[in-house]
Amino acid sequence: MKNYNIAIAGATGAVGRVMREILEERDFPVNQLRLLASERSVGKKFGFDGKDLEVELLQNDSFNNIDIALFSAGANISKKFSPVAVKKGAVVIDNSSAFRMDPDVPLVVPEVNPDDIFRNKGIIANPNCSTIQMVVVLKPLHDAFRIRRVVVSSYQSVSGTGKEAIEELLEQTKNSLGNEEIDSQVYPHQIAFNVLPHIDVFEDNLYTKEEMKMVKETIKIIGDDSIAITATTVRVPVFVSHSESVNLELEKEFSLEDVREILSNAEGVTLQDNPDKNIYPTPINAAGKDDCFVGRVRRDETLESGLNLWIVSDNLRKGAALNAIQIAERLIKAN
Amino acid sequence: MKNYNIAIAGATGAVGRVMREILEERDFPVNQLRLLASERSVGKKFGFDGKDLEVELLQNDSFNNIDIALFSAGANISKKFSPVAVKKGAVVIDNSSAFRMDPDVPLVVPEVNPDDIFRNKGIIANPNCSTIQMVVVLKPLHDAFRIRRVVVSSYQSVSGTGKEAIEELLEQTKNSLGNEEIDSQVYPHQIAFNVLPHIDVFEDNLYTKEEMKMVKETIKIIGDDSIAITATTVRVPVFVSHSESVNLELEKEFSLEDVREILSNAEGVTLQDNPDKNIYPTPINAAGKDDCFVGRVRRDETLESGLNLWIVSDNLRKGAALNAIQIAERLIKAN
Repeated sequence: MKNYNIAIAGATGAVGRVMREILEERDFPVNQLRLLASERSVGKKFGFDGKDLEVELLQNDSFNNIDIALFSAGANISKKFSPVAVKKGAVVIDNSSAFRMDPDVPLVVPEVNPDDIFRNKGIIANPNCSTIQMVVVLKPLHDAFRIRRVVVSSYQSVSGTGKEAIEELLEQTKNSLGNEEIDSQVYPHQIAFNVLPHIDVFEDNLYTKEEMKMVKETIKIIGDDSIAITATTVRVPVFVSHSESVNLELEKEFSLEDVREILSNAEGVTLQDNPDKNIYPTPINAAGKDDCFVGRVRRDETLESGLNLWIVSDNLRKGAALNAIQIAERLIKAN
Repeated sequence: MKNYNIAIAGATGAVGRVMREILEERDFPVNQLRLLASERSVGKKFGFDGKDLEVELLQNDSFNNIDIALFSAGANISKKFSPVAVKKGAVVIDNSSAFRMDPDVPLVVPEVNPDDIFRNKGIIANPNCSTIQMVVVLKPLHDAFRIRRVVVSSYQSVSGTGKEAIEELLEQTKNSLGNEEIDSQVYPHQIAFNVLPHIDVFEDNLYTKEEMKMVKETIKIIGDDSIAITATTVRVPVFVSHSESVNLELEKEFSLEDVREILSNAEGVTLQDNPDKNIYPTPINAAGKDDCFVGRVRRDETLESGLNLWIVSDNLRKGAALNAIQIAERLIKAN
């Protein structure tokens, strides 16, 4: 079996750190791992496979002899360095929003559209965190009952923003408990003990970019533009894992038993649904785990075929790092 | 002008405390205020109108000469003592769920169905907190465009549960920051840095009682059972104010300008909606204020006449104490 040279661009960020962990956990066949970041992190050391790896400066030369480049350093860095990496022969798996809606770039969730991986021209895009966990659960339901319309409201953790947002929630929480002044740098308002209906920038249609990502990316990944989606995305004072309240209008009739069976058997999905025992997905329980958890499965009686679901997943793992590495695994398996 | 003898049953609770404050703030014409609670709080003193009032034991005799009894001590206490208070000649305004769906008991939000106040047979029910803030905003839209269907997901603060839940969030947050063990007494799972899709008990239809309150109470208050409502109610680590992501299917065509104008002019509603300046309602901004705040007003393009809203209000004030006292104000104004 071949071993691969892997680069992580953005290796010191919240997602980059988890990428390192997951490569190790899953025994990814790594020959050489190159940790890339900006000036400020150069020289930092991180353990990998029993060795200490030093962070190198992300630059054009970084991609010499790299087979797979995992990018998670923001859209601008991806736009600048992905073409370089591709030119040097690497396949880029990009966690930023830079190329997601590019028709030449496949947008992949391996449980949903694995074949799209092989339509890549050097770059494969990793979808937005809140989209990934939703489509993993929706795809098997769409296959069985056809989804007409989705109304989703999200409860998203601060780690989706990055390390500095985790720090901000921590600091603000301490200051709030100590009755000290609250300083907001990362978010426009206090996030500790608060919720903000605002993720990413506002667009002209009054939706946020995050909300429109859920709409557009879901359609591209599932490959069916007949699905109508409306989203409200909300930041909550949680460190890890995004939650979603999802209301579905289905085309076909269904029984709750069928829905449960489909979700129980779906790849990457764990059904956690026993109200009598207070069992339902929560962010704290999902954190550090791989699956998308779904619960509160119940019929929406206001529609002929309506369904309510509660979906939770670790946004740093399945919502980012894990999904990227699962794409890499499929890629090398085919080699 | 007549002054009234008022009793607060549950005077030491989270809502009871705010009832005292609001009676004072609004110069309610109080002759005598009687603070009633269980054994454990008897003898505690609270300031009111420059005097110190001692908490008395809630018992049958408590309601002698009382004109208006404000109850906020749970459904069992309301069931036991409301009939006693009514027999002694008081009008009961009950904040518990005990009588809300009783066809003989009006369920009132003064901005929505003020006339129902005068159909009382001694008891007037105060609706559930998450319902009140939603109907204040929905009623003027229903009058203008007819609401066909509502999909609501809530983000509810721990003060809705009571004082002990506020303590639990505080303690768990401290212990979480200090890496100490987390103890959950009030909620079945940790609430600090977590969200729980579970408010009140689960019913046979797999919805929680809180979710069904939003469905049934909304219909009773607006007085139109043609409105279809489906709800997912979620507890978030916020101390005060509930937030709601509300998706509406309207019957008539509308312009966003009309919607904004209607909401701007609606009684008890403040439109807070300027995404360009990061202006939208948040729990921390709404806490301590009287109005229901609405923002993120935008068209849902997946429907012919679809609308998304974000509604936030102080659950202890408009969601409980303030609404009860507003009912009392209308009641005495008619005397």
